[in-house]
Amino acid sequence: MKEIQSIKNPLIKETKKLQQKKYRTQTGTYLLEGFHLVQEAVNAGADVQEIFVNQRGQNEWATWLEEHFPDYYLVSDEILKTLADQPAPQGMVAVVAITETAVENFEGAWLLLDQVQDPGNVGTMIRTADAAGFRGVVLGEGTVDLYNPKTLRSTQGSHFHLTVVGGKLEELIPQLQSQQIPVYGTALDEQAKNYRTVEALEYFALIMGNEGQGMRPEILEMTDANLYIPIKGKAESLNVAVAAGVLMFKMVKEV
Amino acid sequence: MKEIQSIKNPLIKETKKLQQKKYRTQTGTYLLEGFHLVQEAVNAGADVQEIFVNQRGQNEWATWLEEHFPDYYLVSDEILKTLADQPAPQGMVAVVAITETAVENFEGAWLLLDQVQDPGNVGTMIRTADAAGFRGVVLGEGTVDLYNPKTLRSTQGSHFHLTVVGGKLEELIPQLQSQQIPVYGTALDEQAKNYRTVEALEYFALIMGNEGQGMRPEILEMTDANLYIPIKGKAESLNVAVAAGVLMFKMVKEV
Repeated sequence: MKEIQSIKNPLIKETKKLQQKKYRTQTGTYLLEGFHLVQEAVNAGADVQEIFVNQRGQNEWATWLEEHFPDYYLVSDEILKTLADQPAPQGMVAVVAITETAVENFEGAWLLLDQVQDPGNVGTMIRTADAAGFRGVVLGEGTVDLYNPKTLRSTQGSHFHLTVVGGKLEELIPQLQSQQIPVYGTALDEQAKNYRTVEALEYFALIMGNEGQGMRPEILEMTDANLYIPIKGKAESLNVAVAAGVLMFKMVKEV
Repeated sequence: MKEIQSIKNPLIKETKKLQQKKYRTQTGTYLLEGFHLVQEAVNAGADVQEIFVNQRGQNEWATWLEEHFPDYYLVSDEILKTLADQPAPQGMVAVVAITETAVENFEGAWLLLDQVQDPGNVGTMIRTADAAGFRGVVLGEGTVDLYNPKTLRSTQGSHFHLTVVGGKLEELIPQLQSQQIPVYGTALDEQAKNYRTVEALEYFALIMGNEGQGMRPEILEMTDANLYIPIKGKAESLNVAVAAGVLMFKMVKEV
């Protein structure tokens, strides 16, 4: 254990830069907040490079720290606050290495996201995909960054359980189709196919689109079929993460 | 149209108090932010008592204002900001009367919430219940207020489409059961019944519980059956609004 009390400490200044995507890409690392997520990272064998805790965190997790990460830093509340995204940081912030995964084989069920903007929605969909038994999630271009602290918080650690990769949907869809994997889009459009009529499947890809605009038309045209959820009442639409949950649990085959 | 430029204007000071639940209860009114929601209120025949817009709002919605609410107030950006919950208010804030509804007949499908804390989750569940064709939502004691601005924002106006009432679940459940309406709880517990085995129904009540603790044990004991969603992967649970969406769309009978 080492102690840092000055907010001007060079390591703290460097670490704080990871709040910006540019520096995350440059260094290949990101910030993870809160004991629960850091514990998930360690359990998943992620490359945890630094851990910062305040006094309260040290008191609470002393045994865990000694066992798993004795080289942690004890820092002031002010320092922890400057590293954290949340106004009341949860006592622990870690620097974790980004794992670059190249997916060669799209077995199982996959969720593809087309320009989804809200980090809470993206994180919740990753968490739901994990719970529904999906193999992975592809964040298409224009979708919010996985390493945005708000996305990470909503995943609840699920990004350590399944594969999450970036990708170009324009290139990925033909690749999936060439492997005989059906690709389903989603549309708020009664021309599309009622999701209840689709058989549960082991291998497929499901695409969810932007909160306001939905999927891009050029992507909708590339799919094998587009699905819609019939909306009763006078609601105009569903929240995208709720819609994704309804579809994922309906479509995935129980094996 | 009247103009108010001083933030110390008594009407503005009175109106701002509606950000507190105490004053909402006292006056029987609440604040609604954004043109989309105010328009929904007017379309639904809600008792809209005041409308405040800034210059931008006046420019954008001049025709609508003249037609539906010519007695609106034009206010400074600073005033609108002090009335609004969001850092960048959407150009319009209205004072709307709370409608007291007494439900005598629980026909159709109902969603009951037991101590759900997060306003975004509660609003999203009201929106989803609307879309799934539910008749209403009961906010049990300890559940966040409908008139919290964050709840309202997440409903996207759905609280104008279905009945939303407060209630004591301890009293409501026996009342529903005496009307032969089955009441389903939800549990993160493999002792409970797999939701996929439940037949779609026209009349039923579904209860969702607190984000961390789930439903209270004493409420779980009162139900006809408790359901669970089998969780694959290593996720520990689903977001409560996603779980509610999966269950509502599975359980409601298409008529």
